Amino acid sequence: MTIKHTTLLVDRKRVKKNIKMMGEKASHYGLAFRPHFKTHQSRTIGRWFRKEGVTGITVSSIKMAQYFADDGWDDITIAIPPNILAVDELNILAQKVRLTTLVDNQETVRWLTSGVPAGINILIEIDAGSQRTGIPVKDLDSVSKIIDDTSKAPNLNFKGFYSHFGHTYSCNDRGEIIKVFDKSRDAINELREILDQSKSELHVGDTPGCSLSEDFSGITALTAGNFVFYDLMQQNIGSCSHDQIGIVMACPVISKSSLRKEIIVHGGAVHFSKDNVNTNGQPNFGGLVQLNNDGIGSPIKGAHLSALSQEHGRVRVSDELYAQISIGDVLGILPIHSCLTADCMGGYVDFEGNSIDHL
Amino acid sequence: MTIKHTTLLVDRKRVKKNIKMMGEKASHYGLAFRPHFKTHQSRTIGRWFRKEGVTGITVSSIKMAQYFADDGWDDITIAIPPNILAVDELNILAQKVRLTTLVDNQETVRWLTSGVPAGINILIEIDAGSQRTGIPVKDLDSVSKIIDDTSKAPNLNFKGFYSHFGHTYSCNDRGEIIKVFDKSRDAINELREILDQSKSELHVGDTPGCSLSEDFSGITALTAGNFVFYDLMQQNIGSCSHDQIGIVMACPVISKSSLRKEIIVHGGAVHFSKDNVNTNGQPNFGGLVQLNNDGIGSPIKGAHLSALSQEHGRVRVSDELYAQISIGDVLGILPIHSCLTADCMGGYVDFEGNSIDHL
Repeated sequence: MTIKHTTLLVDRKRVKKNIKMMGEKASHYGLAFRPHFKTHQSRTIGRWFRKEGVTGITVSSIKMAQYFADDGWDDITIAIPPNILAVDELNILAQKVRLTTLVDNQETVRWLTSGVPAGINILIEIDAGSQRTGIPVKDLDSVSKIIDDTSKAPNLNFKGFYSHFGHTYSCNDRGEIIKVFDKSRDAINELREILDQSKSELHVGDTPGCSLSEDFSGITALTAGNFVFYDLMQQNIGSCSHDQIGIVMACPVISKSSLRKEIIVHGGAVHFSKDNVNTNGQPNFGGLVQLNNDGIGSPIKGAHLSALSQEHGRVRVSDELYAQISIGDVLGILPIHSCLTADCMGGYVDFEGNSIDHL
Repeated sequence: MTIKHTTLLVDRKRVKKNIKMMGEKASHYGLAFRPHFKTHQSRTIGRWFRKEGVTGITVSSIKMAQYFADDGWDDITIAIPPNILAVDELNILAQKVRLTTLVDNQETVRWLTSGVPAGINILIEIDAGSQRTGIPVKDLDSVSKIIDDTSKAPNLNFKGFYSHFGHTYSCNDRGEIIKVFDKSRDAINELREILDQSKSELHVGDTPGCSLSEDFSGITALTAGNFVFYDLMQQNIGSCSHDQIGIVMACPVISKSSLRKEIIVHGGAVHFSKDNVNTNGQPNFGGLVQLNNDGIGSPIKGAHLSALSQEHGRVRVSDELYAQISIGDVLGILPIHSCLTADCMGGYVDFEGNSIDHL
């Protein structure tokens, strides 16, 4: 395949292996597998999940739900407290698919009661420490009130709980991730027990925890998403190995600085987004990797994107590597946060040159 | 106008005022005005510049050049060392419009000599301290070689120099910006004098410097772009005032945390991108502002986006403000870096509800 412009490449073999791995893990623990599609946002890649037997999915916006509903998915969780200004769109979707939404406040329950006559499943979002959305896990009173409100509304069907243990992302290693995951899971199970809700559903989905934990007690569904591609942030905290990362940016070299021993590529913040990890005290916006003909190769040690502007990326390299790279070469760069890079790029190409859609 | 989903609003009055202001400044100093269209990437907004008499523009990719060429722009600078893998596309463009490109290395000159028979104007990019692309301003030898190579190629027309003083962005105040701008300008003028190129063109375009400097000696064209919208990063370093910021995100409130006194909006990294400024030692991803019916209102002090995930934004607010905001309200949030926010959103709406294109 010939690459002409900055391109997001998908390594089909790795991605399919990741899908199979997480599906088998869910199956091994007797859990439903409702993968989060916000990472890939692709109908084509969604179908790879369908081939592995997946029938229910998780998304993070109404727009994404519509995109996948139009491709035949009929059991969809929108895993964010709904934007009630678009409650009419939720109602239309609920007429078409088995729709589930999160709620974490009574106002939203009132809006759904009046605005979604078609009926909708409810998962109460619990904040077990991620401090984003969700009712704090110790706030039994608020949870009870929502269960009561929901049970009184004929169109709302209370199914259980949803929690994103997002605080696993700030862990430094595998042991810490498992500890955070265990603690969060236990806290929610305690809440369910006190409220006599141990038989209700519990959907959990952070990729670090779902990748590493071997204890899913009380959990009924895995909703992880990032694992489909993984990325350097996940590799950095220990959720995956380098050879599990399934997408790579292919960036043309447009300039070289012999003074700074830097390679400048066409690949900036509009391509990668700006998430970064800390490498030796400096920001790292992406890591160099070999591009083979049939897939992603080995990482190139000590060479990473050290700065991004809108369209430029700067790669600091060794003297030896500097001498080997020419203007017009194409460098492979693993993304730091695959969800954001895929969203910026808005489309993929596989190693055979086929285009793959992105919402 | 009714807002239902996360929307990027354009305040036409402010944007047109910004365009007029920079156009008049260029005119006052006898400079060509070749605004950078990478910030707005909009044909509609491009036409507002045309109404102010602009005929030549600057862009940052071949794709962007094609987008604007198709809307009748026929004098376009691609202000990035070209991706020579797409030299055939440059040649097609060069047949259609008066095309100018940057070069900062001899390899690229060779590629252009053989690959763009249609003819192309050349500006040598000089690095006056921004440390991105460009030949270091002290490297007379490399500059001379490129001038020689270019003069030998019948299809290459050497016009002069281009420099982006990107290091003004890391300044802390107006005085510092002007100092960096002056020093960079003087260094390039010295280079031109030594090389007997004082009559060649010099295009300069950082928004901080172009907004604040009153000394454009030797400069022949202003190519700033960000000023069309400005943003909180520019306001933060002193390039603009709050009431010059011309775009604002309108984000629906989806949740509230009484524990943390936080409002959670539908507006995350896929909407804002992740640039931030430092406010009291903490990252600030966007600042709250009043949304009036006819445009952007006053800033709401002490309330800003303190964290972003893919679709969620968290806004820390005072107790008083917390009590006033309800689920389903729409908050106005000024972007930190308008170029990236506009690129993420991929489209605008004005305060009358009209859609405005983005590449």
